[in-house]
Amino acid sequence: MKLASMKSGRDGRLAIVSKDLTKAVFADSIAPTLLDAIERWPEVENSLRERYQELEAGAQGAFSFDPARAMSPLPRCYQWLDGSTFANHCALMERAFDFLGPRDDVRLPNESDNMDFEGEVAVIVDDVPMGTPAERVAPRIKLLMLVNDVSLRALAGREMKTGFGWVQAKPSTSFSPVAVTPDELGPAWVDGRVELPLQVQRNGEWFGQPNGKEMTFNFYRLIEHTAYSRCLRAGTIIGSGTMSNASRTAGSACIAERRAIETLDQGGAKTPFLRFGESVRIEMFDAAGRSIFGAIDQRYVKY
Amino acid sequence: MKLASMKSGRDGRLAIVSKDLTKAVFADSIAPTLLDAIERWPEVENSLRERYQELEAGAQGAFSFDPARAMSPLPRCYQWLDGSTFANHCALMERAFDFLGPRDDVRLPNESDNMDFEGEVAVIVDDVPMGTPAERVAPRIKLLMLVNDVSLRALAGREMKTGFGWVQAKPSTSFSPVAVTPDELGPAWVDGRVELPLQVQRNGEWFGQPNGKEMTFNFYRLIEHTAYSRCLRAGTIIGSGTMSNASRTAGSACIAERRAIETLDQGGAKTPFLRFGESVRIEMFDAAGRSIFGAIDQRYVKY
Repeated sequence: MKLASMKSGRDGRLAIVSKDLTKAVFADSIAPTLLDAIERWPEVENSLRERYQELEAGAQGAFSFDPARAMSPLPRCYQWLDGSTFANHCALMERAFDFLGPRDDVRLPNESDNMDFEGEVAVIVDDVPMGTPAERVAPRIKLLMLVNDVSLRALAGREMKTGFGWVQAKPSTSFSPVAVTPDELGPAWVDGRVELPLQVQRNGEWFGQPNGKEMTFNFYRLIEHTAYSRCLRAGTIIGSGTMSNASRTAGSACIAERRAIETLDQGGAKTPFLRFGESVRIEMFDAAGRSIFGAIDQRYVKY
Repeated sequence: MKLASMKSGRDGRLAIVSKDLTKAVFADSIAPTLLDAIERWPEVENSLRERYQELEAGAQGAFSFDPARAMSPLPRCYQWLDGSTFANHCALMERAFDFLGPRDDVRLPNESDNMDFEGEVAVIVDDVPMGTPAERVAPRIKLLMLVNDVSLRALAGREMKTGFGWVQAKPSTSFSPVAVTPDELGPAWVDGRVELPLQVQRNGEWFGQPNGKEMTFNFYRLIEHTAYSRCLRAGTIIGSGTMSNASRTAGSACIAERRAIETLDQGGAKTPFLRFGESVRIEMFDAAGRSIFGAIDQRYVKY
């Protein structure tokens, strides 16, 4: 099942999107918003899945799905925790925000802040009790999305040194046009990892395609770690951190990593950070080449 | 005006509380929840203030206000940023959570995590555009609250070293029973600071009473800093960080600070961290000795 939030108010209007991402039907008679749906998931899941089947079967009332009219699947949420799971440590950063739509411009104050993107995968959970062990996490993961975690590298160093985390350096986050249930990933959802490459483009050109199978800590371990001293409420989003592979041929999902590799290999960083007017596209395809989540496709512009 | 959220569902039921904190009336016919009220503040403020005046004048339908039946004034919010403004730097930490009620037990996994409290003041803003300068912040601050920012010191060091901020070490936050409009502070609300002592007790005994007037960066500067690269949406909470005064006679608003002073003055920390069963009380009184926000009064217990 694929879900989206069409632009409407602060929390959007819940819609179900066809597997091929071309059509949609509103589902607000079942749950007005995705946040409401995730809070009452056991009550609403069957009705939502029935409507998805009807849509796939050619139901009346479907409209053409336009990602530019979608908000983030969860337009805002009460907890957004971003991991750092493609490294050899399991770090987490607390984040909270109203999110940008998948085709909204990323509006930022200054180019000199060294604007960057970060391609990631994220999950949405329902209620996870404190102390839940990794082996009991799987049923709590209800939906998956792609992420562009906008970063301002010139501000990150100072904020990391404080030890309190990034705030100014992490201005906004965008998610893919649709959120999908794990079954939509088929054989690519393996032990809490998405074993598919994430396609990242800068201004329409290939930038990288790291595969999620190299996630050092899978989502089950990451959520166990997060829930050590807190309950995660329904609608909490947990991100993988920037996707990254050992092989250089995979490219990178952020500029900072490519610059680090250039520094190692060539003695200096060559790839510049983003300037206003540049664009970033992040998408993931299944084995048959079909887009799973739709594309995040955004321009960075002056606020 | 004083506002509270009585226990009901995930977001509570909005109530108006009398100045002396003894009586309340529901206000959900004006706005069902405090989050809804803060999102539509210009529309609802006059109606809420009228009902507050009626309550003060002895309106029908008032009930006895019991802080144990109150949730956090904002039971959850989309953005909770905690400052560190009583130090010589202006650091911020991103936080997001469902909050504990003012009399709810603080349930934690292990005493060995070195359980602590932190007494603070926080503000709730309505929409603050990106780039808002300090001198235009004042009208955006709609409500103030007290905070107990629960901390697990044994986990904080490791998380600070990652540079990504505290997650496991900051399990939950509690706010005072009521949130108040700035005018309720009268002459104590001065240039974005609360110039009153915060009374902190451990197991009913005096622990400290630092005064908010020594806040190095006032709330206007803190919000300007926060809004540099983001819009703050209505309902964002911004905390002062642990209150602290230069004078040793003020005591401390957290155990970690007292232990640091003991280490400096006596060569070693003597005051132990909290054990299960201990309690913390945080309250603030006006010049006439009347409680402004009601008391946060909580026991730390084993989850």
